[in-house]
Amino acid sequence: MKNRICDLFGIQYPIIQAGMIWCSGWELAAAVSKSGGLGIIGAGSMYPEILRQHIQKLKAATDKPFAVNLPLLYPEIEKHLEIVEKEGVPIIFTSAGNPGKYTGQLKAAGKTVVHVVSNVRFALKAQEAGVDAVVAEGFEAGGHNGREETTTLCLVPLIRDAVSIPLIAAGGIADGRAMLAAFALGAEGVQVGSRFVASVESSAHEAFKQTVIHAEEGTTILALKQLTPVRLIRNPFYEQIRQAEASGADAATLAALLGRGRAKKGMFEGDLTAGELEIGQVAASIRDIKPAGQIVEEMWAEFLAAKSRLAAL
Amino acid sequence: MKNRICDLFGIQYPIIQAGMIWCSGWELAAAVSKSGGLGIIGAGSMYPEILRQHIQKLKAATDKPFAVNLPLLYPEIEKHLEIVEKEGVPIIFTSAGNPGKYTGQLKAAGKTVVHVVSNVRFALKAQEAGVDAVVAEGFEAGGHNGREETTTLCLVPLIRDAVSIPLIAAGGIADGRAMLAAFALGAEGVQVGSRFVASVESSAHEAFKQTVIHAEEGTTILALKQLTPVRLIRNPFYEQIRQAEASGADAATLAALLGRGRAKKGMFEGDLTAGELEIGQVAASIRDIKPAGQIVEEMWAEFLAAKSRLAAL
Repeated sequence: MKNRICDLFGIQYPIIQAGMIWCSGWELAAAVSKSGGLGIIGAGSMYPEILRQHIQKLKAATDKPFAVNLPLLYPEIEKHLEIVEKEGVPIIFTSAGNPGKYTGQLKAAGKTVVHVVSNVRFALKAQEAGVDAVVAEGFEAGGHNGREETTTLCLVPLIRDAVSIPLIAAGGIADGRAMLAAFALGAEGVQVGSRFVASVESSAHEAFKQTVIHAEEGTTILALKQLTPVRLIRNPFYEQIRQAEASGADAATLAALLGRGRAKKGMFEGDLTAGELEIGQVAASIRDIKPAGQIVEEMWAEFLAAKSRLAAL
Repeated sequence: MKNRICDLFGIQYPIIQAGMIWCSGWELAAAVSKSGGLGIIGAGSMYPEILRQHIQKLKAATDKPFAVNLPLLYPEIEKHLEIVEKEGVPIIFTSAGNPGKYTGQLKAAGKTVVHVVSNVRFALKAQEAGVDAVVAEGFEAGGHNGREETTTLCLVPLIRDAVSIPLIAAGGIADGRAMLAAFALGAEGVQVGSRFVASVESSAHEAFKQTVIHAEEGTTILALKQLTPVRLIRNPFYEQIRQAEASGADAATLAALLGRGRAKKGMFEGDLTAGELEIGQVAASIRDIKPAGQIVEEMWAEFLAAKSRLAAL
């Protein structure tokens, strides 16, 4: 395909694998990039030296374009920035923070910069900061989420009409039909998270992958709205949080209850009871664990088939 | 257009105006049906005799197909059923209740029957009950809503894969791009609510219409989850509900606080402070009040334009 997103990243298909904590290391990113999409290392769950190792392994595995996702609120963000600079990472996706702070520096270093947003205001701010594209991520997405709860169907057209830079849709996209729906709304690429969590190359714990492919409607919920909204699975850990919120716990109490390492415990170590299990609502339609390359190929084939079906109407 | 939904209803465009309380009387339904879509009278806010008058006026205004929406939990549902039978209403949309109870009776009387659902289980139940089509309504929709909070983007493919009968998508659809997105997901028609609230022929109070066209991202919220989830505008009435919920009010206390006639007060009488203002999340992209016929024509033109744009990719 030829469009602004494929041109911007130098990729074959406008399918971007989301940079996710604990699930997207170099193996997943390599598999996606090799198959013609854009693979992303999720730096949010990596110490600086771990990030460096993942980037080096990814570069050794493929010479295709790839990216690193940097949550800007990460405590050692300066070290992460140094590493992506030193290792020559060509594309940076930033999220969870102000795009005004580092975009100039990244652009000056010759990087392609994309910022993830959940509303029009942040999309305009990102465009003004000079990013090359934005990801519009809706309410149905797993992990950190916006306060307005705007769904992908409502958000993408709002942002399409507000900015002129290339636009990637995220949240609720796990097959080629949803990819086509995103394009109908004006997106030029899709960012896919949950579907790649349930891939062979994902670093998610096997028990978490099994939980994802058995998720049903209503299995996930947008929780922790008092702190930072996050979509996760309703497991015993979530139930603790819910009860604390229902009995009027303040933000500090909730933060203490949450503690440290909950996401690692759940998603990486497979503790389905005490761990935090971040995944998107679309998990309800994911039923198998497949190689990431196959996911990309099938999504693209479905996209083309759905496009032909639509054109024939 | 020729497809199963247009054939089923005998309409020109697969655009269905949602039957909404206080907003969709005979004037709106007539305007939509005359323009080639399907107009629906919302019986949920009408006493039986009022419903009869609206049906009679609608029949006098147009000989095009039209429907009545019957919320099955309406206290005088038996009287409503008698009236739609006596007045020869050809198409019935049922919602908010068990489709098993009245579908057989309506089908035996020769009606076309459609049921509104928010999850796969209810969709299968409706198909089994013998309905002719289902409406899959997502989290972003205004008014009563499902407990699973599944968005239209996630819900439509799930239901498409589960049932074989014709499928109409609802929630978040206010223009031709979103209509095309729904078709990409496998829908064969769209049901549109919020966009028609802000129409000249809608019976919504002018103050409510103005509120709708000034809504922004985050202006609506899914509230009253302890009773029946409903999407509405965050106004002082909602704030009262929210505070009661935060201080641990039980369902009975909330029901008492809600009282009777809140929706009428807000949507029909224009009390923006003490009234309940039900509207969809997509209100954030609605910026003007237009004749309903123009809304249908523009949506169809946008759908075709977006379809051509997509085909050219």
